[in-house]
Amino acid sequence: MAKNKVEVMIGGQVYALQGNESREHIQKVAHVLDKKVVEMQKNSLARHLNQSQKHFMMALNIADEYLKLEEERDLYSKELAKCNEENLALAERIKEMALEINELKINK
Amino acid sequence: MAKNKVEVMIGGQVYALQGNESREHIQKVAHVLDKKVVEMQKNSLARHLNQSQKHFMMALNIADEYLKLEEERDLYSKELAKCNEENLALAERIKEMALEINELKINK
Repeated sequence: MAKNKVEVMIGGQVYALQGNESREHIQKVAHVLDKKVVEMQKNSLARHLNQSQKHFMMALNIADEYLKLEEERDLYSKELAKCNEENLALAERIKEMALEINELKINK
Repeated sequence: MAKNKVEVMIGGQVYALQGNESREHIQKVAHVLDKKVVEMQKNSLARHLNQSQKHFMMALNIADEYLKLEEERDLYSKELAKCNEENLALAERIKEMALEINELKINK
């Protein structure tokens, strides 16, 4: 598969990234990392870490947000399943009522 | 706030992590990173990177999955909103039909 090569800016540094994803997606990935670098630059503890430790902390922070997002996604998924069930029950009730209306009209 | 300190294993190395999150959450974060390290160990290109580059790549990979999960979450959220709307419309229809049934019974 043809790889997309994109030059991105992360923490003021230019990186040449490549991947099978769209250029837009690669840019977005870089943006997530760039936001993390900015956050870390504001953190006085992180400022004293070496480059490797900073990258490790970045990975940790993103993994933390990934898990929170996963919980959110799971919650939506459960709520959607519940809503679909309610929907089916309501549609079933409508069918029954339509029959009742028909009968009442016939026996009028 | 009292911080939780947890010793975790990532890529065969012990790390002492601490955070405001629960010990269980911190363990899960470490697990996400550990899986990434295992994936990277299987990747012949990643094997030649230095530690800092490996950590950077790990952050990139997790950010990539984060964005995909975000799209999934947004999709569920939209579907849920649509389902809730349908639900309201069905409930409204049931109200109307209940009135119709009442009227038919009165005029029988």
